[in-house]
Amino acid sequence: MAVEPVEPHNYDADPAFALHRGGKLEVRSTVQVRDNDDLALAYTPGVARVCSAIAERPELSYDYTWTSKVVAVITDGTAVLGLGDIGPAAAMPVMEGKALLFKEFAGVDSVPICLDCTDTDELVETITRLAPSFGGINLEDISAPRCFEIEDRLREALDIPVFHDDQHGTAIVALAALRNASRLIGRPLSKMRAVVAGAGASGVAVSRILLNAGIGDLALSDSKGLIHEGREGLNPIKQALASETNRAGLKGSTEDALHGADVFIGLSGATIPEDCLDVMAEDAVVFALSNPEPEIHPEIARRHARVVATGRSDFPNQINNVLAFPGVFRGALDVRAHTITEGMKLAAAGALADVVGDDLTEDYVIPSPFDERVAPAVTRAVADQARKDGVARL
Amino acid sequence: MAVEPVEPHNYDADPAFALHRGGKLEVRSTVQVRDNDDLALAYTPGVARVCSAIAERPELSYDYTWTSKVVAVITDGTAVLGLGDIGPAAAMPVMEGKALLFKEFAGVDSVPICLDCTDTDELVETITRLAPSFGGINLEDISAPRCFEIEDRLREALDIPVFHDDQHGTAIVALAALRNASRLIGRPLSKMRAVVAGAGASGVAVSRILLNAGIGDLALSDSKGLIHEGREGLNPIKQALASETNRAGLKGSTEDALHGADVFIGLSGATIPEDCLDVMAEDAVVFALSNPEPEIHPEIARRHARVVATGRSDFPNQINNVLAFPGVFRGALDVRAHTITEGMKLAAAGALADVVGDDLTEDYVIPSPFDERVAPAVTRAVADQARKDGVARL
Repeated sequence: MAVEPVEPHNYDADPAFALHRGGKLEVRSTVQVRDNDDLALAYTPGVARVCSAIAERPELSYDYTWTSKVVAVITDGTAVLGLGDIGPAAAMPVMEGKALLFKEFAGVDSVPICLDCTDTDELVETITRLAPSFGGINLEDISAPRCFEIEDRLREALDIPVFHDDQHGTAIVALAALRNASRLIGRPLSKMRAVVAGAGASGVAVSRILLNAGIGDLALSDSKGLIHEGREGLNPIKQALASETNRAGLKGSTEDALHGADVFIGLSGATIPEDCLDVMAEDAVVFALSNPEPEIHPEIARRHARVVATGRSDFPNQINNVLAFPGVFRGALDVRAHTITEGMKLAAAGALADVVGDDLTEDYVIPSPFDERVAPAVTRAVADQARKDGVARL
Repeated sequence: MAVEPVEPHNYDADPAFALHRGGKLEVRSTVQVRDNDDLALAYTPGVARVCSAIAERPELSYDYTWTSKVVAVITDGTAVLGLGDIGPAAAMPVMEGKALLFKEFAGVDSVPICLDCTDTDELVETITRLAPSFGGINLEDISAPRCFEIEDRLREALDIPVFHDDQHGTAIVALAALRNASRLIGRPLSKMRAVVAGAGASGVAVSRILLNAGIGDLALSDSKGLIHEGREGLNPIKQALASETNRAGLKGSTEDALHGADVFIGLSGATIPEDCLDVMAEDAVVFALSNPEPEIHPEIARRHARVVATGRSDFPNQINNVLAFPGVFRGALDVRAHTITEGMKLAAAGALADVVGDDLTEDYVIPSPFDERVAPAVTRAVADQARKDGVARL
């Protein structure tokens, strides 16, 4: 890296920069080394006995190393927030932030890893080589459609939880909010038709979890319009979804599918005109989740929809991944799950929805990220489901 | 990993196991997230401004991420302590121990990484891909001769410090002790002839640093005997050393070279008979560094040698890498050095030797690992030398 002079620029006048000075994480030791006796236990020669025992009985690493309690937060820097492909070094503040949230919200230790490669094969092989160091892999900000294959191959190759948060974190929280909206309106998911705009990581995952949760029907759109069977040039991910969604075979734009639809979920970054919401079903649900600019301003959406959610903290009903990923990994690690099943994701969504309980209103279909009941509830549900699904080691 | 039942075995009755329960490290956040305002700075949307700035000016990552302050402690598990090739999972306690020592002795944050690959090309490519996440790479317990090529290629490929501690940590501390022994005896290094038994990672590195420090002559032996020019079947590392060492062209065994030698440094794990020390020069220096069993018992060696050192804490003059690596990395990171030069290693050895000062005796040629002057002295010397060598960015 060439050392170039920095133009005078008072970055720290921005409170985000001031907070980031020196980074946001540190590694601490949990044992003290005060004298030779401590050193002889924590390091040589005592440590050799622990190593030998693990070499003979690999399962001892659960109890005598930090491996099984630490998650790798891994990116290749190709789809960082709304910024796109900014590379691994510039992605670090987001990964550190994720590690910080893991710790603050569920006591999960994690290490941010920004990889200098973007080829699918290279990412899979690199992460596979890293895996003995970690109890779980949280993939982050890896661009679609590579993210789907990368996650699938890692889930196949590794016996620890692998979870692409941009997909499943968003999906779990959106489903939780929709479950509560459904309860509020008194219309079951199985009677609802949803329109999902955006077929990137989160759009695909939201569509899949809604199908797994039993949504009545669902139409998914990408930049070329609605996805339907018979559309030319679909990649395998979209092809698979085409056969499971859009039973009416709707063609055309996102807006075309909104006529009579019960639910709109925006994950595309594109804006949607107000009059499109007018043609939705009565008591419509609108999740305008693009950040920082929702597909439609929530106050405008509220004129036409009974329940409105966004990704923003300054409006009601924030769909924020931090409601899911800390508890999902805490629960999976606590029972030493070797994978995260679809059932565990559905259980996480159910537990998250249940936190709202009797306080349910149009402006409260999802708890606040700072509701201290959230992470324990998600943790418990995920751990229980892991046992039911036979993927727990404890 | 198959889940096998553990036979009843009270591991925790061993204090080393009891200390290791739950692992020895944790990751902590250095900023608090109490409310939405904090969240909006540490994570989205505030973090996006920091990422964008780094994408535009990569050097900002020094100030606004933890990257430049964190070292990866990386192994492939092929040469763990004296245990050999026990694999990556079983190597973790040692790597955690190293990370703990980095923090306790010099405040250096580090992350243990145990890689599931042993091929040289694969290790180099994997570590190169990991590099954007770290400010330095400490290689550990990678078997010779692969360790030499791996370190060389990484030093070439990366613009952050790369340091194989089994080589250079041992070399720095051994040189420091020998400098003080030389001062005590009143015989300069340039008038000394040394015999180094063992041509693995540490034997090669000790030989190289002694040559760089101006030792008079040096003979190095491996399991087949003394290395000399013309010996058949030498690998390139040994070939290069053959041309720089053993100017008398000695052949035969380690013992053959000890006649009249001033210094013996054992790094081979083989024992050496007492009578071999009898033929060394007057005021001989014996460093019997194999662990846990020195090449010769230090009390026996002391009958024949003026200065004796071992790797053990229960005898005088412990040659312990922890005297070097924490300060070496602290110094290199503090000035954002892009590499660790030979000069920086020599400076570290000089500073370490100087801590002993006027208290020098036969039983005190090297400070205790718990001497609080050590890490600051090594840090300062390494940082100063990095600037002199033109490899510092600060």
